[in-house]
Amino acid sequence: MTVATSTQVQLASRPTGWPTAENFSIVTVELDDLAPGEVRVANDFLSVDPYMRGRMNDVKSYTPPYALGETMTGGAVGRVVASAADSVKVGDTVVHQLGWRDVAQGDAAGFRVVPVVPGVPTSAYLGVLGMTALTAYVGLLEIAGLREGDTVFVSGAAGAVGSMVGQIARLKGAGRVVGSAGTAEKVALLTDRYGFDAAFNYKDAPVMDQLAQAAPGGIDVYFDNVGGDHLEAALGAFNDGGRAALCGAISQYNATGPAAGPRNMANIVTRGLMLKGFTVGNYVQHFPAFMADMTGWLTSGQVVFDETVVDGIENSVEAFLGLMRGENTGKMVVRTTSAG
Amino acid sequence: MTVATSTQVQLASRPTGWPTAENFSIVTVELDDLAPGEVRVANDFLSVDPYMRGRMNDVKSYTPPYALGETMTGGAVGRVVASAADSVKVGDTVVHQLGWRDVAQGDAAGFRVVPVVPGVPTSAYLGVLGMTALTAYVGLLEIAGLREGDTVFVSGAAGAVGSMVGQIARLKGAGRVVGSAGTAEKVALLTDRYGFDAAFNYKDAPVMDQLAQAAPGGIDVYFDNVGGDHLEAALGAFNDGGRAALCGAISQYNATGPAAGPRNMANIVTRGLMLKGFTVGNYVQHFPAFMADMTGWLTSGQVVFDETVVDGIENSVEAFLGLMRGENTGKMVVRTTSAG
Repeated sequence: MTVATSTQVQLASRPTGWPTAENFSIVTVELDDLAPGEVRVANDFLSVDPYMRGRMNDVKSYTPPYALGETMTGGAVGRVVASAADSVKVGDTVVHQLGWRDVAQGDAAGFRVVPVVPGVPTSAYLGVLGMTALTAYVGLLEIAGLREGDTVFVSGAAGAVGSMVGQIARLKGAGRVVGSAGTAEKVALLTDRYGFDAAFNYKDAPVMDQLAQAAPGGIDVYFDNVGGDHLEAALGAFNDGGRAALCGAISQYNATGPAAGPRNMANIVTRGLMLKGFTVGNYVQHFPAFMADMTGWLTSGQVVFDETVVDGIENSVEAFLGLMRGENTGKMVVRTTSAG
Repeated sequence: MTVATSTQVQLASRPTGWPTAENFSIVTVELDDLAPGEVRVANDFLSVDPYMRGRMNDVKSYTPPYALGETMTGGAVGRVVASAADSVKVGDTVVHQLGWRDVAQGDAAGFRVVPVVPGVPTSAYLGVLGMTALTAYVGLLEIAGLREGDTVFVSGAAGAVGSMVGQIARLKGAGRVVGSAGTAEKVALLTDRYGFDAAFNYKDAPVMDQLAQAAPGGIDVYFDNVGGDHLEAALGAFNDGGRAALCGAISQYNATGPAAGPRNMANIVTRGLMLKGFTVGNYVQHFPAFMADMTGWLTSGQVVFDETVVDGIENSVEAFLGLMRGENTGKMVVRTTSAG
């Protein structure tokens, strides 16, 4: 009788600065027989996300740090290959949070059965139909409180979250949508494919100058994926009563020292600004409303999405580093060999 | 027939760094006869406030900058000495925003008649019964959204706003109230007179270290009057979901270059923090609720207040600079000679 195994990527040591392959180990473990109520899932796709960098550090946060020697958890989607649970049957497609492993096993309560939508890859449940796009939706509507006619600025706008922010902003009544990205190709994508009104390459000139040109009337909402000089530029461009949803600061995740803060914090007082950070896990109550909106937008073709797919669980770390370097367009996922 | 005159302090040039007497001029102007609907007021007290420093710069803000050659506007209280308006009669005590002048004159709509409370000086309308305490009330309850049991940290806590924040926090259910000030005498006042649970002198040791000691369980609300290292310390001490009301940044008002921002902005994301700046003028709709609460607290002795009084309109600039240097305890006001 064949013993079932699972190949997994574990955090072996905490990175200082940029993570390297040496911070991780790949192990293959034997799986126990299913206990009553458990399911076994062959994963198709694993999610790599910027927030994972923060969890590699041992710091206080809403989301606890990864433990050393444990498998990297995170979003994943796959097919049920064995089930000892009444609620889930073999062949079901499920989404779960067990992360970087080719085979996942555990109590059925940790797996959410999702419908297979014809023409939509199941990887969409890690992006446009998952936590990634929910992050954009919640950040823009609940955290920043988008209002009709607002000028919206999004950093990291060609990424999985950013490209959704821009499209949702338009669909929810923004007056003008401006985005930044790090290559000419991405900048073209923003205006040509995602419907941004203006976009710029932050490597071309100071963000503050380019933002002033792209949003001459100032901005009302800023969705921050980048931090650093982007946040400072937004604070400088805000109209009175401006609101920022702080989602991430990818420019600073691999910094080894404290990152310099914006030098124009005084604008928060004088212009009555609000900055609010959030972690999507605390806002899952908005998932039904999000799914209703997003399913409609996808069906009608009002939202488009892109994915960057890396093959092989053994390349998960490289995929994550590529994400950190901005090599992805849209959602970065790893296709496990079990996806066949 | 005597011609009525008014002695006024005007902004003559924009200060770079610390203002000096040379940035102001004192002029005495002749007043026109009252037009129908106008009143003439002999001021008793003028308000000097930290926010006035910002208005001396020519920068974009909710509150427009002072114009050069115009009289410094701001809160003042006085007695009506002549009236051509039905709604206001000679002898009434009125509050207005015409600022640093011994005699104010204008349309009655710009003057609010207030009751004279036995035992309470009319200067209270510039502090505990005026915009100053409303600032504390709005910032704590509306901006920071104080909740039962919160640990609250207030910087500049012995000042006019700070001393109110601490007392209102206790009365509205805070679990622990911590304050910082700049002298040992002020620190003693915080715990002995204003009811703070803990207080420290920010000049004694790094704010971050002293705050960690004073609030070992972390903080939930921060009321910022100071900015700089105080704001950075608060960002470091916040519990998940912490909220900051940014009222001012007196530590940076006289800086000649851009002020360094907090180096731990990443905590805003990871701990789900909110920072919100405000200018009290946008929240005057809360004035009736504030007055109902505050009148009750004063009558029952649950709120105490202090004033630092400087005599003579010609000393207005010096009073303002003393405020900037932290020489006041509680509300800083100028008593004009007309107060007799």
